Amino acid sequence: MTRSATAVRQVRRPRGEPRPEDFTFVTEPLAGPDDGQVLVENIYLSVDPYMRELMDFGGWEKGLGLEGRTLGRVIESKAPALPVGTVVLHRHGWCTHAVLTEADARPITPADGVPLSAYLGILGGTGLTAYVGLTRVARLQPGEDLFISAAAGAVGSATGRIARLLRAGRIVGSAGSAAKVRHLTTHLGYDAAFDYHDGPVRTSLAKAAPDGVDVCFDNVGGDHLAAAIDALRDHGRIAWCGAVAQYNTLDTPPAAPHNLFDIVGKSLRLEGFLVRDHPDAREEFEHFLVPHVQNGTVTTDETVTDGFHTIVDAFLGMLRGENTGKMLVRATPE
Amino acid sequence: MTRSATAVRQVRRPRGEPRPEDFTFVTEPLAGPDDGQVLVENIYLSVDPYMRELMDFGGWEKGLGLEGRTLGRVIESKAPALPVGTVVLHRHGWCTHAVLTEADARPITPADGVPLSAYLGILGGTGLTAYVGLTRVARLQPGEDLFISAAAGAVGSATGRIARLLRAGRIVGSAGSAAKVRHLTTHLGYDAAFDYHDGPVRTSLAKAAPDGVDVCFDNVGGDHLAAAIDALRDHGRIAWCGAVAQYNTLDTPPAAPHNLFDIVGKSLRLEGFLVRDHPDAREEFEHFLVPHVQNGTVTTDETVTDGFHTIVDAFLGMLRGENTGKMLVRATPE
Repeated sequence: MTRSATAVRQVRRPRGEPRPEDFTFVTEPLAGPDDGQVLVENIYLSVDPYMRELMDFGGWEKGLGLEGRTLGRVIESKAPALPVGTVVLHRHGWCTHAVLTEADARPITPADGVPLSAYLGILGGTGLTAYVGLTRVARLQPGEDLFISAAAGAVGSATGRIARLLRAGRIVGSAGSAAKVRHLTTHLGYDAAFDYHDGPVRTSLAKAAPDGVDVCFDNVGGDHLAAAIDALRDHGRIAWCGAVAQYNTLDTPPAAPHNLFDIVGKSLRLEGFLVRDHPDAREEFEHFLVPHVQNGTVTTDETVTDGFHTIVDAFLGMLRGENTGKMLVRATPE
Repeated sequence: MTRSATAVRQVRRPRGEPRPEDFTFVTEPLAGPDDGQVLVENIYLSVDPYMRELMDFGGWEKGLGLEGRTLGRVIESKAPALPVGTVVLHRHGWCTHAVLTEADARPITPADGVPLSAYLGILGGTGLTAYVGLTRVARLQPGEDLFISAAAGAVGSATGRIARLLRAGRIVGSAGSAAKVRHLTTHLGYDAAFDYHDGPVRTSLAKAAPDGVDVCFDNVGGDHLAAAIDALRDHGRIAWCGAVAQYNTLDTPPAAPHNLFDIVGKSLRLEGFLVRDHPDAREEFEHFLVPHVQNGTVTTDETVTDGFHTIVDAFLGMLRGENTGKMLVRATPE
């Protein structure tokens, strides 16, 4: 039987903000699976800010497809450990079907009461990023006050929820619209939040956290990082997770913070991290979080678009901040 | 008996680099000592980069004198714990004599074979700064490669010597003249060194450390910090001690590093620190270092000017980088 799969390819390097014309959909016959391989039909695909950065690294010039974390179901198997019907997590995304080896597919058995999509969100790399940043990088202590930038985004939402479980003190967040600000204070339990379009971030943060903060979980960089340096108390820590503000401008990065030298004067710690360096945190993380998801203390925050054909729009929308929580594409019903 | 003391006062806030006219020498009668106090004649006075920063904070407008770490001898005592002849370390410097309470004077008993001036240098705040930065902030491990900026200065010299004792791998330093570069490689045991006037720091550092470094001990900021971010390997650490490059330009700080976002991409840690936050490190530090000073493994690096009247010139010369090692003023013979 000949099968075919549809995939998205990048066709050129974006200048600044990517556009639909930077991508193309390709449908091609799919070989395999061979012995030791499975054919997977993808269900949920994750689109994430870091993919914008990957678009600058020229993989497309070598004919490589885009990829990202994806949940799929085995529909044909020549690998005994992954029988037909197994749900697997893998990284060969941006396509409807993938042929994978056992090594590239991690079987997922959703815990009772946990929605499948959570394994790409609060229980996936997104949640693990938040957990590692708070516990291992910033080393947040109970009662400490926290500022989260891009707080309504995927990692930001997870960070706020997990910080509350870790018994953070006051939690303050920034977001890109009045609706998101309301979401933060109404649904995510933030003590204060502001729209970063409403004036200089340092002014808004000073108003939202007049007594300062101990920890900043920064997903933005640029003026958010400068504002965090201003707001941090002595011995404060910044877990620097990414810099959405910079992904579209790698050729001409925004001005670095004017107040960087306050890192010395206030004995601050600015630490970058990548979740892939902390695979050993996963077991502790799941042990900590799964019960909270099961009993409803934590819900999963996501924006889902339907149909594989929506993936480029979902990605571009996510970069423009149109999502609340994790941005996912549902390629086919569960 | 009426005594008098000569002190230096700041008379205005410097614009950029301080000048001799920013200071004045004042001789005034000295009251006391009262019960619980001692009169101290100062022997060695330390002039340090951080004092430039203090000049911007307006103490002089309130009639406050300059001050800094100083070694003196008790010449009149109404404090039983500090009899006449005791050598004390205190912070009421920039004067020939000072009246001190017991709480403000720490008695020093120089270990056998250790020169008195070492207690302001390699065994003083300078050496402790180097030790804390390497062991507690950067957490340097044996075999790790290190870049030290302003390596011929007071803290830089001490950092190089202590790093060698901590069994650092390759040690690379920057300095401000060809003579200092020779001093680093010939006398201080650096594996490579460069004059930062000889071209872009990032280029010079890439040549001196072609395989990168694990740790940077930065005393400069600005382009040195950017070069360090470039040279650091994944998971590298920067102990950020001060920013000589910025002390004269606090009103218009230099551009922060263009490559700051690499802190995320390379999972770097940039951590500022002040030695005053680590008083508990002193005992461990002395236990570690005194034997090395006694047996000559470590010598104290200093530039000494003679006579209290030289203190302003010594300070200004230190800011211009005219010293090698710790800059001290000998107000009176030991």
